[in-house]
Amino acid sequence: MNPDQHERCSGPIRVLDVIRKKRDGVELSRAEIDSLVHGYTSGEVPDYQASAWLMAAVIRGLNGAETAALTDAMLRSGITLDLSAISRKKVDKHSTGGVGDKTSLVLAPVAAAGGLAVPMVSGRGLGHTGGTLDKLESIPGFNVNLSVSQFQNVLQQCGCAMIGQTQEIAPADKKLYALRDVTGTVESPHLICASIMSKKLAEGIDALVLDVKTGSGAFMKSEKEAVHLARLMVETGQRMGKEVVALITGMDQPLGRCVGNALEVAECIDVLNGRGPEDLRQLCLELAGWMFLLGGAVMSIEQGRTLAEQMIKSGKALKRFRAMVTLQGGDASVLDHPEHLPQARHKMEVPSPKAGYVTAIHCEQMGTACVILGGGREKKEDAIDHAVGYVVHKKISDQVTAGEPLCTLHYNSESRAARAQGLILQSYQIGGAPPAEMKPLVRRVIQP
Amino acid sequence: MNPDQHERCSGPIRVLDVIRKKRDGVELSRAEIDSLVHGYTSGEVPDYQASAWLMAAVIRGLNGAETAALTDAMLRSGITLDLSAISRKKVDKHSTGGVGDKTSLVLAPVAAAGGLAVPMVSGRGLGHTGGTLDKLESIPGFNVNLSVSQFQNVLQQCGCAMIGQTQEIAPADKKLYALRDVTGTVESPHLICASIMSKKLAEGIDALVLDVKTGSGAFMKSEKEAVHLARLMVETGQRMGKEVVALITGMDQPLGRCVGNALEVAECIDVLNGRGPEDLRQLCLELAGWMFLLGGAVMSIEQGRTLAEQMIKSGKALKRFRAMVTLQGGDASVLDHPEHLPQARHKMEVPSPKAGYVTAIHCEQMGTACVILGGGREKKEDAIDHAVGYVVHKKISDQVTAGEPLCTLHYNSESRAARAQGLILQSYQIGGAPPAEMKPLVRRVIQP
Repeated sequence: MNPDQHERCSGPIRVLDVIRKKRDGVELSRAEIDSLVHGYTSGEVPDYQASAWLMAAVIRGLNGAETAALTDAMLRSGITLDLSAISRKKVDKHSTGGVGDKTSLVLAPVAAAGGLAVPMVSGRGLGHTGGTLDKLESIPGFNVNLSVSQFQNVLQQCGCAMIGQTQEIAPADKKLYALRDVTGTVESPHLICASIMSKKLAEGIDALVLDVKTGSGAFMKSEKEAVHLARLMVETGQRMGKEVVALITGMDQPLGRCVGNALEVAECIDVLNGRGPEDLRQLCLELAGWMFLLGGAVMSIEQGRTLAEQMIKSGKALKRFRAMVTLQGGDASVLDHPEHLPQARHKMEVPSPKAGYVTAIHCEQMGTACVILGGGREKKEDAIDHAVGYVVHKKISDQVTAGEPLCTLHYNSESRAARAQGLILQSYQIGGAPPAEMKPLVRRVIQP
Repeated sequence: MNPDQHERCSGPIRVLDVIRKKRDGVELSRAEIDSLVHGYTSGEVPDYQASAWLMAAVIRGLNGAETAALTDAMLRSGITLDLSAISRKKVDKHSTGGVGDKTSLVLAPVAAAGGLAVPMVSGRGLGHTGGTLDKLESIPGFNVNLSVSQFQNVLQQCGCAMIGQTQEIAPADKKLYALRDVTGTVESPHLICASIMSKKLAEGIDALVLDVKTGSGAFMKSEKEAVHLARLMVETGQRMGKEVVALITGMDQPLGRCVGNALEVAECIDVLNGRGPEDLRQLCLELAGWMFLLGGAVMSIEQGRTLAEQMIKSGKALKRFRAMVTLQGGDASVLDHPEHLPQARHKMEVPSPKAGYVTAIHCEQMGTACVILGGGREKKEDAIDHAVGYVVHKKISDQVTAGEPLCTLHYNSESRAARAQGLILQSYQIGGAPPAEMKPLVRRVIQP
């Protein structure tokens, strides 16, 4: 730590003054935010100044203009994909993450089949939530590390492509996120908004549908928090000239029935075949409907849902998925033979300890159970076992008899299975009657 | 920046949790504060985590128990002087800093002559304020870098000793202050309190008199801020079992008439000879009076003032100063021949642009004028010219004719003198009548 570094500045703006202003709750200008973000990305502003600023921003908050300026500065820290060669409307979806949340794998091919281009840059699972990249990599050979030009090629050929964040896209976010992670500055809706929106808008999209999860398995436990974050993201998108809508959706229990990477891919293939669990299927239709509406493919959300349904029923979506898997080096035989996906060596049922109705599920713990089986990461470096996970048989309001299986574990380690079983049993609340009220899966729609 | 460092912890306490708690305004335990301070001092907690915590502490504040715990942790980061071999009561004075604030050089020998021991660890000037060490070093040969045992020896022999902060005393404060300086986390009364009190209590003292300055030349511009800081320090001292009192004193104009290191030493010698400007003399008697009272040498503040006056009148204080200068390697001939102190090559008067009364003086600017002459530091590494400075002829409410000198500059550089002159002229407000009200120099006394 060099005490002289407070003399450093980007142009005429001193980073120390930017820190002090935010400390005192004063609104920062676009130039001040730019100076901080670009100074930090280039290494001119050291970690300890960035973390002091981040803490001030978390406690004092940022207003709409500041949040948009931060998003824009982070976006401009790297490349923005130039998709002007693709004439289709570019529309993406982003979810704030949950348990069994696998809609991307359905949505990308459905939207592509319906005439949109979906340039999807996704993340890996961390903590109790899964990640799209991990699910994709359970398909043998599937390559999520395409170069930008390979990515554009796949997108051009089949209308959708799915990759991981590259070094070139929003490097400021990557560096800031790593710092936030170790300085207690993750939990800020404004910083979360800027992080998500900078990456998504770097994809060169025209419109974005946000799936903001709320409930015991979401990062935003309360609907109020979820709505606040959704509003920030919609406002930020609007300020940056993009069409953005956010759906507030429930994450009080795993989405669909499968949790675990290969199991979730198989479930998505089911949905693309017109089958699959109703909650997952309905959410996919709803999200795809909004993608079609924002992308101008339809005139109403009802038409959007219908178009999505047609893309599945006709097999066109499955065809797109097959094309994308093939183009990205994956073994497309898994579409016809899900048993070609990684398979766990053992299965075990988790029986209900008593008869009654499922009244609640502690969804974060359910996510952790999958991590414990080896299907997720506790630390970034952890390797993942794509085969493990579980199938949920009983969901909220379902009746259950004593000894009837709540879930079936797919596992490769007895000791891990025992721990996961314990967590799952703890997660289920079983009572004498079903819950009086079932909230709808889609709680609200937040529009500009 | 290593993302894994959030896994580091001191014992069972995770630094990330300590940061998060303070971020959310939750009170920290003594163990949590200890863990943070000791982790940072040892290098286990990186700068970027410490700065995030500091920012949270600045914005959320610390309560009395937290401030005392922080002070104590910083104090225990280094050695505490063991002065048990000295039977006298150990009493020190600390000032929050001002312009022409030179009382330490008078108080230490006065208090020593009156029967106390004064183990004074002082600082250097920074920004617009001067520092005791710089003033002392204008005495040829004077060594402020004594070892702890040399310091104890001087103290034993003459009742007072004055040194700079060593690596051994409160190293956590040194490291934290350097970080605060570059992260916008200096301006917090709680952190300022802990910084001052940890260093002072490490001196192994029984009692402490605080001179908390307020006004245009002080760090605390408003009396309200000064009283708040004073109360924090008095409370912290009390929590740590020490006798502490704080005087809120005015810093609306330079104290005494001399500003600049050698000039100020000469003025102190004047005061020790029973002469010198009345404001400086009165403040010294008041502060020394409180030192005597807290040290148990007298029964009332009036008796304390009288004892201080006697120590000057009798020549006993001057004798102690001579002994200390000699013991610390300084040329004591300066006491009889102030011309042996460094002398500037040139003098120049700053004439009043108009006739009237001095209604106000921008005291911080007056301090900066001395820095510009070369008598202070803009950056820590700057060298100091001990000879330069100025003598103030006109103070607030004084009458002045057009062309009459406001100050006399002592300088070694024409260009610096020209800049200083400009600043001084800007600092003086001259009106048609003296100010209606003159606040007393000692505004309030804050006791436990």
